[in-house]
Amino acid sequence: MISYINSRSNKRVVYASSLKNKNNIKDNQEFLLEGKKSIELALKAKLVKEIFTLKEIKASYDIPQYIVSEEIIEKISSQKNPEGIIAICKTLENKTDKELHKVVYLDGVNDPGNMGTIIRTALAFNYDAVIVNKECVSIYNSKVVSATKGAMFLIPILEGELKDYKKDKVVITSTLNEKSINLDELNNNKDFILVLGNEAHGVSQKTINESDIFVKIPIDNIDSLNVATAGAILMYHLK
Amino acid sequence: MISYINSRSNKRVVYASSLKNKNNIKDNQEFLLEGKKSIELALKAKLVKEIFTLKEIKASYDIPQYIVSEEIIEKISSQKNPEGIIAICKTLENKTDKELHKVVYLDGVNDPGNMGTIIRTALAFNYDAVIVNKECVSIYNSKVVSATKGAMFLIPILEGELKDYKKDKVVITSTLNEKSINLDELNNNKDFILVLGNEAHGVSQKTINESDIFVKIPIDNIDSLNVATAGAILMYHLK
Repeated sequence: MISYINSRSNKRVVYASSLKNKNNIKDNQEFLLEGKKSIELALKAKLVKEIFTLKEIKASYDIPQYIVSEEIIEKISSQKNPEGIIAICKTLENKTDKELHKVVYLDGVNDPGNMGTIIRTALAFNYDAVIVNKECVSIYNSKVVSATKGAMFLIPILEGELKDYKKDKVVITSTLNEKSINLDELNNNKDFILVLGNEAHGVSQKTINESDIFVKIPIDNIDSLNVATAGAILMYHLK
Repeated sequence: MISYINSRSNKRVVYASSLKNKNNIKDNQEFLLEGKKSIELALKAKLVKEIFTLKEIKASYDIPQYIVSEEIIEKISSQKNPEGIIAICKTLENKTDKELHKVVYLDGVNDPGNMGTIIRTALAFNYDAVIVNKECVSIYNSKVVSATKGAMFLIPILEGELKDYKKDKVVITSTLNEKSINLDELNNNKDFILVLGNEAHGVSQKTINESDIFVKIPIDNIDSLNVATAGAILMYHLK
């Protein structure tokens, strides 16, 4: 289903461009995805509804493809140097049938690159889900989507609060306080939730109150690690 | 030494703004640093030459401070929402008196956020230096500087090639090939260079040829980890 759009004011173009606003993503339950590799993964996940592209792409899926000009791509894209292919996708389901044995909980992670990287790492280490609370940056932020490198279509991403998922799991929280043990001393064989906090303020008091174990990575010379790198070290150790 | 600048065409403002171009950084051996926290660390490292700021800052160092308007900050800044304080700093020395027992070598790391994060992690795990080859993004790129969170003033950053630093060190290269061993199997007690490669193409053939050990982090579901997160896991393990 190939068609051509020539005008920047075409209603599909205007609609696509409106999805740069996060309220419109929520209202329409659709978001923008840029780049061929990510779109291929979204196609496999059956999330793609329409594609805007400079050149026709071969797809074994029956998705409308609009061949458009660079100007139109620039109007829709959030990137400085867009790759030339953008899809409108359905937002994620926010539920999973998987049993949750090991999950990552993000408590106000705010930097889109960090969130995307954490999702990518969680998938690589076979975590069952990533839970994001409402203080986090939107998972549909274009930089989050880009940094996941398609991982967001392959691991369940759930919106919610720690208490909704805790049940009988051990909550292991990455923070530095008087109860924190060194990562080397951490041994856990039970189902768990690994908590990572905000870049500037760490984890919230509410989360601290619901935590079972506090863990720190021993470092020198500097106050803290980047949350995505600390998260990677912890996820690898707890994998 | 406080003075006021009102004009965007003032010669100090024009000069500062010119340092957004990397050739000008090289020619003048000065670069721009944004944000109070980073500037405080650069002051301690005695690298700050001039400060442009919306409000006078208390400093125990005798550095010229120019009080300027938001318009002037915007002209000099590379950031969308500048913090309101920018310094001109001397570029780093590109040498160290430290003995190099464990170092990280970056072979074409191209994303500024990744490079900055790797430098921050290397400092946190007491690495002796970070070596960057000429295929890497400039360490004075404003996003590198920002992502290091001041770490670039506390760990030597050396420009050069692997062969210049190899000597009797073991070169441990993060890559996936038929000789790669899993990280769990890696035991090294000698001085070493940990090599991390380009985001898209990995490490170069030249570097492969100079490597002693190839190491991979076992992952599933996805082709690769982000280089800064893989680097963090490796640096922690080899610390």
